[in-house]
Amino acid sequence: MSGDQTLAAYVGAFVDELAKSGLRHAVVSPGSRSTPLALALEAHPDLRVWLHVDERSAGYFALGLAKAEGKPAALLCTSGTAAANYFPAVVEAKLARVPLVVLTADRPHELRDVGAPQAIDQLGMFGTHVKWFTEMAIPDAGVSLLRYIRATACRAVAVAGGGPMGPVHLNFPFREPLVPDLSSPDWYQKGERAAAYIQVVEEPRQVSRKEANRLAEVCSGKRGLIVCGPQDDPQLPDALEELAGATGFPVLADPLSGLRRAGQGEAVLDGYDAFLRAPEARTSLVPEVVLRFGAMPVSKTLTQYLTAYAEVPQMVVDSGEGWRDPALVAAGMIYADPVSLARKVAAAIKEPAPDAWFRTWRKLNQSARETMEREREREELSEGRVIPELVDLLPEGSLLFVGNSMPVRDLDSFFLRPGKTLRTLANRGANGIDGVVSTALGASVAHDRTVLVVGDLSFYHDLNGLLAAKLHRLDVTVVVIHNDGGGIFSYLPQAQGDPGSFERLFGTPIGLDYEPAVRMFGGVFSRVESWGAFREAVGRSLEQGGFHVVEVPTDRAANVTMHRERWDQVAADVGRFFREEGSRWS
Amino acid sequence: MSGDQTLAAYVGAFVDELAKSGLRHAVVSPGSRSTPLALALEAHPDLRVWLHVDERSAGYFALGLAKAEGKPAALLCTSGTAAANYFPAVVEAKLARVPLVVLTADRPHELRDVGAPQAIDQLGMFGTHVKWFTEMAIPDAGVSLLRYIRATACRAVAVAGGGPMGPVHLNFPFREPLVPDLSSPDWYQKGERAAAYIQVVEEPRQVSRKEANRLAEVCSGKRGLIVCGPQDDPQLPDALEELAGATGFPVLADPLSGLRRAGQGEAVLDGYDAFLRAPEARTSLVPEVVLRFGAMPVSKTLTQYLTAYAEVPQMVVDSGEGWRDPALVAAGMIYADPVSLARKVAAAIKEPAPDAWFRTWRKLNQSARETMEREREREELSEGRVIPELVDLLPEGSLLFVGNSMPVRDLDSFFLRPGKTLRTLANRGANGIDGVVSTALGASVAHDRTVLVVGDLSFYHDLNGLLAAKLHRLDVTVVVIHNDGGGIFSYLPQAQGDPGSFERLFGTPIGLDYEPAVRMFGGVFSRVESWGAFREAVGRSLEQGGFHVVEVPTDRAANVTMHRERWDQVAADVGRFFREEGSRWS
Repeated sequence: MSGDQTLAAYVGAFVDELAKSGLRHAVVSPGSRSTPLALALEAHPDLRVWLHVDERSAGYFALGLAKAEGKPAALLCTSGTAAANYFPAVVEAKLARVPLVVLTADRPHELRDVGAPQAIDQLGMFGTHVKWFTEMAIPDAGVSLLRYIRATACRAVAVAGGGPMGPVHLNFPFREPLVPDLSSPDWYQKGERAAAYIQVVEEPRQVSRKEANRLAEVCSGKRGLIVCGPQDDPQLPDALEELAGATGFPVLADPLSGLRRAGQGEAVLDGYDAFLRAPEARTSLVPEVVLRFGAMPVSKTLTQYLTAYAEVPQMVVDSGEGWRDPALVAAGMIYADPVSLARKVAAAIKEPAPDAWFRTWRKLNQSARETMEREREREELSEGRVIPELVDLLPEGSLLFVGNSMPVRDLDSFFLRPGKTLRTLANRGANGIDGVVSTALGASVAHDRTVLVVGDLSFYHDLNGLLAAKLHRLDVTVVVIHNDGGGIFSYLPQAQGDPGSFERLFGTPIGLDYEPAVRMFGGVFSRVESWGAFREAVGRSLEQGGFHVVEVPTDRAANVTMHRERWDQVAADVGRFFREEGSRWS
Repeated sequence: MSGDQTLAAYVGAFVDELAKSGLRHAVVSPGSRSTPLALALEAHPDLRVWLHVDERSAGYFALGLAKAEGKPAALLCTSGTAAANYFPAVVEAKLARVPLVVLTADRPHELRDVGAPQAIDQLGMFGTHVKWFTEMAIPDAGVSLLRYIRATACRAVAVAGGGPMGPVHLNFPFREPLVPDLSSPDWYQKGERAAAYIQVVEEPRQVSRKEANRLAEVCSGKRGLIVCGPQDDPQLPDALEELAGATGFPVLADPLSGLRRAGQGEAVLDGYDAFLRAPEARTSLVPEVVLRFGAMPVSKTLTQYLTAYAEVPQMVVDSGEGWRDPALVAAGMIYADPVSLARKVAAAIKEPAPDAWFRTWRKLNQSARETMEREREREELSEGRVIPELVDLLPEGSLLFVGNSMPVRDLDSFFLRPGKTLRTLANRGANGIDGVVSTALGASVAHDRTVLVVGDLSFYHDLNGLLAAKLHRLDVTVVVIHNDGGGIFSYLPQAQGDPGSFERLFGTPIGLDYEPAVRMFGGVFSRVESWGAFREAVGRSLEQGGFHVVEVPTDRAANVTMHRERWDQVAADVGRFFREEGSRWS
């Protein structure tokens, strides 16, 4: 075998095994050292290569793809700072439990740490932020390595996709020459041997009958709550509604939980972020037990409420080995498959919660919902009305991706009993404003229609990501809430300080008109001045497909006022409720 | 003392000590957790805050500032993926020996690894890519910590700025509330105590008389070479010319060495990348000793030449503790101050090299130079003529910053006996195409006139960096060589393979018209079609100041042909030279 053929056998076996293990997408950035893997990925019939020039955006694009599909996606870049650009997406993937197989090409050992060009220390460069790192063998030992290569590819996909999912990093040193001879059609295995070289089976942790009974006993007849934060298991919403039915517990359902959907049961509450702001609600609604599922919910109000009842048994259910308790109130961590746990506990419940407990939560929720929904009547453009308008416009099954800071909070406040099932996603691992555009573009690959709602600073931060929309002709509508700066800082104490340095350091108006940049990336741009124009622009984008940006100009100060007015109204209603009929159940 | 005052005393002392240690610039990105440090940096009278929204660009902007000033610059961002965006610039800073003080705000210990928002593992997150990492104390132990705070600030600046310079990382956990009370004017120390709390003195390593004599003996009367790669010491060029005078060695001077300048001596050779391509030159010019200074030169031809003479004593002189020997040919590493070493060895030399040795190198260089300079006569736009045109246009003392891949190689080929002293800089630590725009913008702060020459892919990669030009009204002219893709890949073997997948994976034409994006960032855009228009556009930009982009459309294939034609011509001349008069000296 010539060197070119040895190299082809090596990268061919690796790439083939990625495909056989179920991986379908590879996001590749141009480079020289990565040539062997790039050519093999491109040549494999079962893999789709997505080219992206900016590795930071490429990382987030792969993150979005993997997140939307729930399956590992691969990343490939050359040696040097290219790999360092993946860091933000890798960090997010670890915390948000998104499976990524990160492949970095590297210089061989003799060219490391000796001042060679594009040679940086890539060994373990993502530190604790990947689930697994391995340095691959140099492909010069010939075919004797093929079992190792195939097994390592299987293992990489399995570790990334095993619970809790996350990123893995494989570093590939290559010596020149770098062009593999892929001309033989036999370098990947076809037909009869379609299965992976090593099939990895990972069974979920099933809760034992004993533990299910114990939990049922803790919950039976109690004033309990089910809290469900961001989570991706499509079966969990039904299971939690079942649990709610048996326990008589309301489900405080984060907008990223999958529970706010067509036909959501009356136990599923979506207005708690508003009504738990009222002191009467926080002091009167005294829980006796809390069951938490998924990541921590978006609502800071809910976190504060749960923190106030730290002495109450609060149990966190997690399929993996996480420790998701930022409020430091957990009394128990239960590592078991949440779906089967919910069903088994539901079956073992002897007595539901007092009826008044459930009724009070539901009434407060209804009232808050109605107040928040009145935001729809506001004629001028406001951040609060964007979400309900989009719910109307989007067809069933579409993806609604939201940015961090304000958009995800607006989703929490205004994505209420939507009446249809949309998929909602956001980057809630590290909650960064970076990479949001690329993540949404990556996720759009798995959906017919995708709308991203993002603030202007976040849009600017990942402007480069728009290249993917152009190169790959993606169908995405981006709604940019343009209040020229960081709206969320207006809610912080420093907003009361010196206005000059506040604007300079926090408000940070950068005064960009995104229209030209959007056009540069081949998008259709509309800046709307009314809700009619908004509906028309978004509707047209969904009808035509392709890449569209709809800008909604808003005002940061007006936005704070809007939210505070709504919350004050809800609080007033809560106060009245408790004066008139409250505490009858307690 | 109230909590706000304790916090103010803590961050105030830290920031004040940064300033007293000589740091002048801080590049700050907006965020909440970083509020205490952001407000203190902003309030300090001796520090200038540069706001940047994209932390990746912010990192490179600080890198450019620190590189141009040769003094540490600070970076500040909030917790979460913000910090991960610094990674590429941190990696470059370590390898390129640029002093950065990276400050990251963090959640306190009780909010780490428990699913809290914007909390990632920041401890040692830059791994081996920083010189020093420390986790700071939480500022709640009151004034008893002030000695620690002031000492740590001094230490951070000293470690970053000590040889070899590089990045340091300090992680600051803060608890709420995050707004320090900086209203007292006494939180920084004025007037009488202007010196740093701890003054760090680091003396250079002086070569001993014995070692200098030994080196002089190795060099005396030999056919020797001095090689100087990229380096920043403004005194080294004179010292090396002195050494060349004493030894009779030619100096192969990288375009980033500082040796190609007004009045450069005849020993300073700049055409070696062209004439060493000729086999006759490589085989006839047999050195007996090589002295290397600075980083590895840009020229791959030179590296190959040095590799061919691995048995010859090649000595690498380094002020620090590097190991810059990518060709694996070093016979000696000498850790000593290069300037005094060069002077002391020069003084101890007993006999110069054979006259014919020097004369041959000089003749080959002159001939190659003349051939390469003929590129100026080419009428159509070409990548080779950009550099000499800029040398004509730029005033003495200006900064000429070049991108990686093709521009830095063009600088090597065409920046020949410039006749004036320009400062040339590039990111030659990891040689990435990322972050080039921001680095040049940061460096422009220290220069009256700055021109950046960059390829279109590199320009795209750091498009976001242009925000700094707008926000801070910088004076920069960016010359974009737009050949729609990665020109350097056309020189690689894969360019001979399947043209479809070559263009898709390597050529990567992304078809962007940068004019709208440049306008969005407040720049003046010109696309030129002739050298007359080029001179006019660049000339106007230098005259007017402000932010300008001049696009030079070129063709990747024509560029390869142009370079190969020049090199073939040089090789033919070399062949003729050795046939006619060569080897007379040997």
